[in-house]
Amino acid sequence: AIDGDRLWQALMALATIGATAKGGNNRQALTELDRQGRELLTRWCEAEGLAVRFDAIGNLFARRAGRDDTAEPVVIGSHIDTQPTGGKYDGCFGVLSALEVIRTLNAHDIATQRPIELVSWTNEEGCRFAPCMMGSGVFAGQLTLEDALARRDAEGITAGEALEAIGYAGDDANRPGRFAAYLEAHIEQGPILEEAGDRIGVVTGALGLKWFDVTLTGMAAHSGSTPMDLRHNALLGATRVIEGVDRIALAQQPDGRGTVGAVQVAPNSRNVIPERVTLSIDLRHSDEAALKTMAEAFQHLLEEVEADSELTVEVTPTADYPPQYFDTDCIAAVREAAQAGGYAHRDIVSGAGHDAVFISDIAPAAMIFIPCEKGISHNEAEYASPEDVTAGANVLLHATLTLAGV
Amino acid sequence: AIDGDRLWQALMALATIGATAKGGNNRQALTELDRQGRELLTRWCEAEGLAVRFDAIGNLFARRAGRDDTAEPVVIGSHIDTQPTGGKYDGCFGVLSALEVIRTLNAHDIATQRPIELVSWTNEEGCRFAPCMMGSGVFAGQLTLEDALARRDAEGITAGEALEAIGYAGDDANRPGRFAAYLEAHIEQGPILEEAGDRIGVVTGALGLKWFDVTLTGMAAHSGSTPMDLRHNALLGATRVIEGVDRIALAQQPDGRGTVGAVQVAPNSRNVIPERVTLSIDLRHSDEAALKTMAEAFQHLLEEVEADSELTVEVTPTADYPPQYFDTDCIAAVREAAQAGGYAHRDIVSGAGHDAVFISDIAPAAMIFIPCEKGISHNEAEYASPEDVTAGANVLLHATLTLAGV
Ligand SMILES: NC(=O)NCCC(=O)O
Ligand SMILES: NC(=O)NCCC(=O)O
Repeated sequence: AIDGDRLWQALMALATIGATAKGGNNRQALTELDRQGRELLTRWCEAEGLAVRFDAIGNLFARRAGRDDTAEPVVIGSHIDTQPTGGKYDGCFGVLSALEVIRTLNAHDIATQRPIELVSWTNEEGCRFAPCMMGSGVFAGQLTLEDALARRDAEGITAGEALEAIGYAGDDANRPGRFAAYLEAHIEQGPILEEAGDRIGVVTGALGLKWFDVTLTGMAAHSGSTPMDLRHNALLGATRVIEGVDRIALAQQPDGRGTVGAVQVAPNSRNVIPERVTLSIDLRHSDEAALKTMAEAFQHLLEEVEADSELTVEVTPTADYPPQYFDTDCIAAVREAAQAGGYAHRDIVSGAGHDAVFISDIAPAAMIFIPCEKGISHNEAEYASPEDVTAGANVLLHATLTLAGV
Repeated sequence: AIDGDRLWQALMALATIGATAKGGNNRQALTELDRQGRELLTRWCEAEGLAVRFDAIGNLFARRAGRDDTAEPVVIGSHIDTQPTGGKYDGCFGVLSALEVIRTLNAHDIATQRPIELVSWTNEEGCRFAPCMMGSGVFAGQLTLEDALARRDAEGITAGEALEAIGYAGDDANRPGRFAAYLEAHIEQGPILEEAGDRIGVVTGALGLKWFDVTLTGMAAHSGSTPMDLRHNALLGATRVIEGVDRIALAQQPDGRGTVGAVQVAPNSRNVIPERVTLSIDLRHSDEAALKTMAEAFQHLLEEVEADSELTVEVTPTADYPPQYFDTDCIAAVREAAQAGGYAHRDIVSGAGHDAVFISDIAPAAMIFIPCEKGISHNEAEYASPEDVTAGANVLLHATLTLAGV
């Protein structure tokens, strides 16, 4: 069994980097705080005798040799970047559970047949640089390295510049080859396990996702001297898009999700009619056909708004992946580990995207969920109990041992 | 008649101070560039033999003696501060037209019965330090000097500190006493004159205004893993407010105006359900009862949104003044001057607030509008033609002569 106290202390130590006043974390990808987080994680991995390397998009790999060191590794981990008002658990729980698995194996001098690679993927959150799951996406061939490095944040800085600035641009020669399996432990980020009273979610797949950026452009003018009928108010078009996205998701229940999370208004001055509004659109569903229907309804909505306003509407897709079904052997290893630990568990589909979603395109993969209080995540109030954190890491340990062989 | 070329050259000369790449001006109140603008204007006034003084909030007064120098003065002017992406005309047209009136009287050696005071009010725009129309507001008793000087910019600098730093804090003993009349020439900042093909707007009053800040608070949660029916999405409440403000204004046509100009979403991340949205609300009407009806409908809207969502809604008033009706004698002087000049003109109500709005509380006042291209203002592309600028200054000259007596 893993050492729950040691794992909890590691979580709290990492959470001091980018700690927010409300008890959360703001350690966005490729910032100075991300650099500090990477440095601490690297130090911890090296203390366990692991060989730490970075690939060209900055993914961290830390290798523990196997008895058969030429065998394909079992890869375990997640990400340590956070949302601007993120919590302390999210991806950190997965990375530090992986570290705790290795610390436990080292402490008990347990050799595995296959090597084990701890991984910490770059920019999973995608809030500073879209798309999310950038590091695992590049690794799995979802997007090219060049494309990823050219993405810009709101200040116009590219991901490549930011990665260089924090000194973590590595070399793809450092990548491990094919994975025997990939396991990722994560908080659920939703309310299902807590409501059901289960401690472990055996994740069988993930909702498909389509992201878009929409820009509506009208004309800036003085809010006092411009009569209502002469306005080209970009914000009024934007409200129709925001409400339409909600309606489109409500038409595909229970699995449809539709969200506008980010809004930028220009010039954003109280006595100027909005000239330009940019919206981020997030559509999800467990069923590929239903997701397609949602995307079509969304396109139709934009055409409608453009047709009966004097606004121009531009749309750019920023992320797109189909519903994912994880590997049956990996799922079985997780389920058996939960059973063996005596943990109440259930099969669950992930509403959130995870690095495992992309990795499952190129390797057998599965995930382990633990509850998070009230389902709150991407929020400074995010909380997972020490008991659940310990349970999740124990399931990761035993599933890893099953897949890596002792 | 005034000298249109000389006036145009003065406008272009002042516009070199804080000129922007896109042909506009960024000469915000109480900055080093404002200091340079004040210096140039002072030099020009002194060259005309005017006595230049500053009051405690930094308003500039430049006096041309009257035949009866104990008579109440006719005061003419506007402001020279600009928006961050402002134009070259806005308030500068009014101040430099006043200077051109005086230059013309001097050139033709015309003595007026009453003294004439040129005024340039401090911080009309209110973009660096709220509220707008600060200098005329203090002068007219809308806010106290202490309150105004304590207002802070985004960097935390007070208006008092900034005024000291540029060396233009004067003494209220320098203020002229009661005004016989106040006239302000200004670009319309709206599309009405251009659409009508009129060169002069005889401004009979200004819309009343009520400004509010509204904050809607829900709960941040993950956009992928949070089912639609468990959300508290602050942005969906905000869209109802935005649309409601538009509807409330449309119900009070033709004079009702309702605008949400500024929107802040938190945490503003593409995969987080919006927790908090702040909106700026701008309601205007020419009729006090109609403006009150709009404000009541707005309050009712907020209550409705709060009642049938699980959001909390907070509202703070940030500005409030009633519709203004300018002085009939001043209006008549402007109308007759337009007629005498042979300019196509029409009565118009100002949609924007102006220094004249506050001054009209304490003195007979009116305004002269000229068209601005496509109604565009508070924008680097702002443009008024030399012909219209000349026409406006001629109307100011003749209305001033009527009110000051020859
Ligand atoms: N787990 C997680 O928050 N991933 C970010 C991508 C998503 O929005 O699902
Ligand atoms: N003229 C002008 O832009 N004044 C600012 C106050 C307003 O929004 O009307």
